[in-house]
Amino acid sequence: MTSLRVLLAVLLPSFCAALPLAADDGMWLLNNPPLAQLKERYGFEPTPAWLEHVQRASVRFNNGGSGSFASADGLIVTNHHVAADAIYKLSTQQRDLLKEGFLARTREEELKCVDLELNVLMSIEDVTAQVNAAVRPDMSAAEALAARDAAKAAIEKESLERTGLRSDIVTLYQGAQYHLYRYKVYTDVRLVFAPEEQAAFFGGDPDNFEYPRYNLDVTLVRAYEDGRPAQVAHYLKWNPAGTQEGDLVFLTGHPGATQRLITMAELEYARDVQVPGALRWLKSREVLLNAYAKRGPEHARRAQDEIRGIENSRKVYDGRIGGLLDPALIAAKQAEETALQQFAQDKPELGAADAWDKIAAAQQVIARHAVRTNFLENYQFNSDLFSVARRLVRAAAERTKPNGERLAEYRDSAKNTFELGLFSAKPIYTDLEQAKLEHYLTIMAMELGANDPVVQLALGGQSPSARAAELVAGTKVGDVAVRRELYAQDAAALARSADPMVQFALALDAQAREARKTIEQQGEVKSQAHARIARVRYAKDGDKVSPDATFTLRLSYGAVKGVDQGGQRVPAYTKMGGKFERAAERANTPPYDIPASWERAKAKLALDTPYNFISTNYSIGGNSGSPTINRAGEFIGIIFDGNIHTLVWNYAYTETQARSVSVDVRAILEAMRTVYGADALVAELLGGR
Amino acid sequence: MTSLRVLLAVLLPSFCAALPLAADDGMWLLNNPPLAQLKERYGFEPTPAWLEHVQRASVRFNNGGSGSFASADGLIVTNHHVAADAIYKLSTQQRDLLKEGFLARTREEELKCVDLELNVLMSIEDVTAQVNAAVRPDMSAAEALAARDAAKAAIEKESLERTGLRSDIVTLYQGAQYHLYRYKVYTDVRLVFAPEEQAAFFGGDPDNFEYPRYNLDVTLVRAYEDGRPAQVAHYLKWNPAGTQEGDLVFLTGHPGATQRLITMAELEYARDVQVPGALRWLKSREVLLNAYAKRGPEHARRAQDEIRGIENSRKVYDGRIGGLLDPALIAAKQAEETALQQFAQDKPELGAADAWDKIAAAQQVIARHAVRTNFLENYQFNSDLFSVARRLVRAAAERTKPNGERLAEYRDSAKNTFELGLFSAKPIYTDLEQAKLEHYLTIMAMELGANDPVVQLALGGQSPSARAAELVAGTKVGDVAVRRELYAQDAAALARSADPMVQFALALDAQAREARKTIEQQGEVKSQAHARIARVRYAKDGDKVSPDATFTLRLSYGAVKGVDQGGQRVPAYTKMGGKFERAAERANTPPYDIPASWERAKAKLALDTPYNFISTNYSIGGNSGSPTINRAGEFIGIIFDGNIHTLVWNYAYTETQARSVSVDVRAILEAMRTVYGADALVAELLGGR
Repeated sequence: MTSLRVLLAVLLPSFCAALPLAADDGMWLLNNPPLAQLKERYGFEPTPAWLEHVQRASVRFNNGGSGSFASADGLIVTNHHVAADAIYKLSTQQRDLLKEGFLARTREEELKCVDLELNVLMSIEDVTAQVNAAVRPDMSAAEALAARDAAKAAIEKESLERTGLRSDIVTLYQGAQYHLYRYKVYTDVRLVFAPEEQAAFFGGDPDNFEYPRYNLDVTLVRAYEDGRPAQVAHYLKWNPAGTQEGDLVFLTGHPGATQRLITMAELEYARDVQVPGALRWLKSREVLLNAYAKRGPEHARRAQDEIRGIENSRKVYDGRIGGLLDPALIAAKQAEETALQQFAQDKPELGAADAWDKIAAAQQVIARHAVRTNFLENYQFNSDLFSVARRLVRAAAERTKPNGERLAEYRDSAKNTFELGLFSAKPIYTDLEQAKLEHYLTIMAMELGANDPVVQLALGGQSPSARAAELVAGTKVGDVAVRRELYAQDAAALARSADPMVQFALALDAQAREARKTIEQQGEVKSQAHARIARVRYAKDGDKVSPDATFTLRLSYGAVKGVDQGGQRVPAYTKMGGKFERAAERANTPPYDIPASWERAKAKLALDTPYNFISTNYSIGGNSGSPTINRAGEFIGIIFDGNIHTLVWNYAYTETQARSVSVDVRAILEAMRTVYGADALVAELLGGR
Repeated sequence: MTSLRVLLAVLLPSFCAALPLAADDGMWLLNNPPLAQLKERYGFEPTPAWLEHVQRASVRFNNGGSGSFASADGLIVTNHHVAADAIYKLSTQQRDLLKEGFLARTREEELKCVDLELNVLMSIEDVTAQVNAAVRPDMSAAEALAARDAAKAAIEKESLERTGLRSDIVTLYQGAQYHLYRYKVYTDVRLVFAPEEQAAFFGGDPDNFEYPRYNLDVTLVRAYEDGRPAQVAHYLKWNPAGTQEGDLVFLTGHPGATQRLITMAELEYARDVQVPGALRWLKSREVLLNAYAKRGPEHARRAQDEIRGIENSRKVYDGRIGGLLDPALIAAKQAEETALQQFAQDKPELGAADAWDKIAAAQQVIARHAVRTNFLENYQFNSDLFSVARRLVRAAAERTKPNGERLAEYRDSAKNTFELGLFSAKPIYTDLEQAKLEHYLTIMAMELGANDPVVQLALGGQSPSARAAELVAGTKVGDVAVRRELYAQDAAALARSADPMVQFALALDAQAREARKTIEQQGEVKSQAHARIARVRYAKDGDKVSPDATFTLRLSYGAVKGVDQGGQRVPAYTKMGGKFERAAERANTPPYDIPASWERAKAKLALDTPYNFISTNYSIGGNSGSPTINRAGEFIGIIFDGNIHTLVWNYAYTETQARSVSVDVRAILEAMRTVYGADALVAELLGGR
């Protein structure tokens, strides 16, 4: 729901500065922390033990967020909007946990999530040399991509088999470095506590990316191993004293993606193709789902989680295009690039003078294929049933290939994650599926042209409505048992399947793979060029720029700090009582209504408890749920959003007006005790077990 | 709000028949009524007096709907959703008449509408020969357009000056005929009675274009002349006995536009360019306004009326693209066209064999310029303030030209209507204006390209946000007195204006005019070709096809008749009690909540009163508010919608499943008496004065 779930950062409609390395800039690698900056600016020197502790206490929610261990018994805190996907999947027409909230009074009452995977980073290894060794300069883009993919697959597979840990190679600096990340994995994750969504997301879409805020965007889950609560050595102690303005605070979390180090050609692509396409897609879906949701309360419940995600992304991309249309941003990026290019020309020994042209040429190819690839490959026909069918079809084809030649998600190292998703018992609502697929076929025809052969193939001689009805009504892949049967079949058997969705996925597979390959090969071209540009940047500026975000663990630092907004000082902290005041101003109408539990508890609540606070920490979508940590390595809050000025952070960090927004530890404890009567959990959070 | 306000008809996602002339087909001209069909099918022979009576009792709402006189004292009944624009303009933060409803207990309490113009058709004259006489075969498209425009302007001006009646030339059969329509005009129109919007629009967007329905989509206004209620000789008597299934019923109203007689090239343009562009535009605005509306109750009130209109149009165009992507529709249209072309080739003396190619070529040009013309000219920057500024700028330029050379809306014959709009005291909310203009500049950049010179000109070197803020904050044209001052100035004086919006309109005017001229010249090419195709159609099929809708008075006929839907029989009538049942099924949550006035009146209401009913009459957007009339020429209902199957009617009439939806006269009277205590009005409606 709110801003910081994965991959969703943005640029602000009034960017107006050059792009210097500001003081609290950076999303730092845990194996290359900003020691000099921390010492210089805050007089703080984290020890290796401090760094290891916060690393191992940090948790990645593989569905797009962050969190942290909060007790030795595997208790984990994250944002409500990160856990919402899991809560939605546990809800039914009779029991809407998103709306009602949830509290397990005992461990036996904790609810097992359907398909949630958590990752804890155990080690990082630089494998750049090995990955690059596979690629020779005389290779074509196709050959280089294949060679690099094979090398990466081999490293990941070897690591998984040797260590038993999930092993992912992460591409840093757009291709300049490759690091092997190894994770401990938890797939038995249980819901422990969630407030009502209205408590977590008070103010809804209009207040998203705004401050002041009054949100209890918090949920607790627990990791289990072998049917028992996981015992963990590293968890963050909760410090109920919280913070005060000016305090140094850290985030450890998993920012999804930023685009600080892209070239002008890539920036123009974002402005002219990518963001406009994303906005068309998002807004059309937002309209579709809102119209569906208005048909009645159960329709609203079914569409709710997806609507929240779309609203958030739409706000992100609206901000992004606003920034991309700001001449000041474009001029600043151009100046930065011109300086790098000049440096590259002055130092021909770096061999990077033509790197920008290479990227521009590759980006042209990508631009021509982008919309087609989105509709054939990336958007998955906006259908869970299609997505299942495609995975079945591809799994049968891919498993006959050598591991290194497979599409990434079908490699041996990805198998556990793949099967967790494929066999998920998440609810699928066929009426919603049909509405979405009809919409998709319609939009696809409008975007690619009704006479495009793949559109004709997708429609199969029918109207979008008739085609969607036929596919959704006819397929059996909604049944997990059927999926298991089909997963056991080989490609020849699947080709004979009578299931219309399987046949649909088969019919479009060659074109989808081709489109994807085109994009990936151009990505290889760009990676090689970016590696050369990174050498230029390093030669010119040294090691002072952190890599763009990659949904892997990063450390950011900053200070709790108010902000000047429109000539007014906005204090760093809000109070719990402010929520009631704001609701009263808006006539207590959604999304500004107070949940009944809060109304009941109001008289007992310490209304002057700090509720939300802002700090200068650099964050972006994916950071949602990241613990806010003090010098002592203690939990003093949890980030859940940024203000409107952070939308620029996709392209550059600034701290003049931009702030990350956290829930204060004191408010979490006060609400859990006074509103929710979760005393046993509070005891565990404060006692550590 | 609901479906039938102007220009909004559509095509259905499961069109599956050829396109024969079905029995109740047609939107007939009042000067060429379907006498043979009526006699043959229903044994009814309307007399000239019957026709004149229903013609003069019918009222056009110039903002896009229909209505009818209901008493000799100028009382007029229309749909609530037709009057909503006027009701919105009369509302304030303190008094939301859309939400609360309105009842004038005395004539003194009747509220004068801000800028509503009503038209009553007094006469029709065929001026085809005069209009065509101006155009010579050797003229270029530009010359022909200019000559035709000059001829039309002269005829309209002469008629207005001679008769004092509003005089408009109507283009019929896409250019085959030109008729001069003369109207009596009312601009002192007062609001008399409106239910709460929730009573009129129960079921909201999800139930729009659906049946069964339970809507009191009715509002009463009164025409005034010289400060007193207009005295009219022709009004429809209300028959409180209503109708029964099978009864012959008529509509007289103003269908906005249909596209039954367009060529395949034009149909493909609709599929590939026009409808996709309209949907992008509508959905982006729907998202923008919904996000705005969620900020609080007053925001919601400000955006309400526009949101309703967009929701309706979006549903229309969604249906339209669904039909255009139905191979069955395309095949049927192709077969029809092939037969006409064959006929034209067999009869070269008709001189029409190349007419389709001419249209296709013109349509190619239009396709290339369509999006640009929309953003420069048609969409008016989605800003009332801009629209005012543009009209001021153009009025100064146009009034120096000879009448026949002006843009149509600046001709002498249009002056009264033009000034009514320009000097309207409708509320303009600058925060909403700014949000809309920022959005517009952003979308325009995405649609035309950020580097397009007109986009650069529009942005003026700033971000969309900064530019919109500068223009909206700086302009004074929101003040009607300022408008009057500026309207009195000549072009040279305006060019020196410090008003930023005036300067903005000036800066973009040349490009906007150029884009418009391109489209209009191609329109002339198409008109000439369509006139030739019309000759072919007439030679082949005779006079059995009514012209496409043109927002002018038409007569349609049909029968009250239930419908088979998904294997179930849906009865022709709903009952008033059904509304309460439907609300209960949906937990009384919006848009299915019962207004408090209805809850209070429920015990006294005759719940078995017929509420809404369906009939086979051909209708389309613009017909909203058309009276449903019996053989005796009496008012027995008022049309307000069509079911989902009527969306195909934009391209062809079918009556298998498609039905128009009316409010039953019996429900109107029962609600006015029992829910609203409007006994005096009921007496006037039943007594005729």
